[in-house]
Amino acid sequence: MGSLDPPVEVTRIEGGTVLAQQVLGTTLADFRRAADNIAHHTIVSPLLPWHGRDRELRLKAESLQPSGSFKIRCATNVLASMSAERLSRGVVTASAGNFGLGVAFAGRARGVSVTVHAPDTAARTKLQKLRALGATVVEHSFDEWWKIMSTRRVGASDAPLIHPVCEAPVIVGNGTIGLEIAQQWPEADVAIVPYGGGGLCVGIALALKASGRATRVVACEVESSTPLASARERGKSIAVTRGPSWIDGIGSQSVLPDMWSLVSKVIDAVVVVKQSEAEDALRSLARDSHLVVEGAAAVAFAAAMRPQFRNSRVVAILSGGNIDIPTFTRLLQDGASTEGA
Amino acid sequence: MGSLDPPVEVTRIEGGTVLAQQVLGTTLADFRRAADNIAHHTIVSPLLPWHGRDRELRLKAESLQPSGSFKIRCATNVLASMSAERLSRGVVTASAGNFGLGVAFAGRARGVSVTVHAPDTAARTKLQKLRALGATVVEHSFDEWWKIMSTRRVGASDAPLIHPVCEAPVIVGNGTIGLEIAQQWPEADVAIVPYGGGGLCVGIALALKASGRATRVVACEVESSTPLASARERGKSIAVTRGPSWIDGIGSQSVLPDMWSLVSKVIDAVVVVKQSEAEDALRSLARDSHLVVEGAAAVAFAAAMRPQFRNSRVVAILSGGNIDIPTFTRLLQDGASTEGA
Repeated sequence: MGSLDPPVEVTRIEGGTVLAQQVLGTTLADFRRAADNIAHHTIVSPLLPWHGRDRELRLKAESLQPSGSFKIRCATNVLASMSAERLSRGVVTASAGNFGLGVAFAGRARGVSVTVHAPDTAARTKLQKLRALGATVVEHSFDEWWKIMSTRRVGASDAPLIHPVCEAPVIVGNGTIGLEIAQQWPEADVAIVPYGGGGLCVGIALALKASGRATRVVACEVESSTPLASARERGKSIAVTRGPSWIDGIGSQSVLPDMWSLVSKVIDAVVVVKQSEAEDALRSLARDSHLVVEGAAAVAFAAAMRPQFRNSRVVAILSGGNIDIPTFTRLLQDGASTEGA
Repeated sequence: MGSLDPPVEVTRIEGGTVLAQQVLGTTLADFRRAADNIAHHTIVSPLLPWHGRDRELRLKAESLQPSGSFKIRCATNVLASMSAERLSRGVVTASAGNFGLGVAFAGRARGVSVTVHAPDTAARTKLQKLRALGATVVEHSFDEWWKIMSTRRVGASDAPLIHPVCEAPVIVGNGTIGLEIAQQWPEADVAIVPYGGGGLCVGIALALKASGRATRVVACEVESSTPLASARERGKSIAVTRGPSWIDGIGSQSVLPDMWSLVSKVIDAVVVVKQSEAEDALRSLARDSHLVVEGAAAVAFAAAMRPQFRNSRVVAILSGGNIDIPTFTRLLQDGASTEGA
């Protein structure tokens, strides 16, 4: 969809500098501590070999985490960083679903009550699961929800909330994926990471660097909304239009102001894939790798198949598997009719 | 479907005694050697926690293996046990698909030509994949194919074939799953294993025992064909009718004569599940664990949900994920219409 014209510069808020300082100082020991924090509530996700002809591709299947996405890592790490006294008042978050699910799982494990503010574009399956886990869900329009994400404030209550992206323990928790890749495949040339809020890209990049690996981090987006590609083009975070897509969880209205200074330092490139490529990817992953993935993960796989990664050792981060089953079924069937034509 | 009436006793052939002696003598060192043999071509499959309310259930996701099922373990181990001279003439096997796929993957990795004899009931997706891997596929009626399996002879050529079940290196290769469970979850009370030819059950049971674990092995079958339950009832292998089912890979016409002496020693119990339970299981695994599984794996999950395993630590062996996508899609949709009703 490209950027709005004229470009709207997104105001930087003070937190960004603080966050960047906190996060850029993260050491290998910090990432290892996070790995210890989450060990009992997450899996070391497998790195599944994909039989590509012209590249070595492996899939980091975060879709297999208990909460259905990588977000259980950072959510668990955030709760581990909070005092028992603070936890006793419960936790509040804003999330397209996956972070909320992660917090709900982590909260249940520790007996902490959880409230989740979600956009009404989120997959129904995610909201149902949140409620089944005992969380309170509050739905908002996407614009309203985005305001909550940007200001970190919810309505009149002014309740402080755990931000799904811009918290140091969130980013360090995400980094445990980079730590695992560094051990599972030290030779990896490239890690391809879906760009949602940026916390996944940044965490993985910093952990790979802290582990002494030369693995480059390439972000990926889908054509219907390209905040990162647009920000890189302009050299600053700008607001973009958000087109319709079955792919949720990535494709925001802008790079979060707090994240730009980090993102611009650690991400090596960005790949924008077509919706049709993501749909083919979803079908390939179901048929050949026997994985149910959500849109963002399909985008990472699609990006990994691009010609520019020929003769490379590539990891695609399959960020999650929380897709509505009717959507998933429809996409599988679309493939059958196309292949039959 | 139960047994034929009057029961037809299946003739024991001499190989059974030899096989039993070979296999029952397998030591922990033998299983570890097999694990080394296969390490570069297989994954250590993850043990995925399932959030059950009244039991601790974990899923051994063999559906994530490169060939789409556990059979790559035993196929790779068999090829490792053969001389280069014998391999130079190529290898022949009879397989409902998964073992053939395993041999095709293992053969490709070692540059060995592969011929596969398969029943025409096998999932199309499996046969297509075999051909894509460069294997020659010969299709037979199920009865003809079963004769090949039982006699180990193919037509006039009298070519010796690698049996997908009744070979010591096959059973020891399967046992590497038991070895992994012994490390991943030493406290497991029960491992629930789909009963196809019996080689998976026997391999896992012997490896768990060799590892000093008390984990019981429970086999599972689907109601449309129950050779093991019938054999246990009669105390000997008998022929049973085979009803129609979307579930392939398990449910033979009888316990293989060579296997009965082994099976009757190491399997603690058998659970027979309904087709509808397996269908619900397939849907649950797609929705909540984000796995695409084939029928046999769904049967194992369904068995693990039975009341008798309440308050137990249960591993369900999800043997594979090679299911025709149209079948998979249809089963997902059936669930949607049922749930909507």
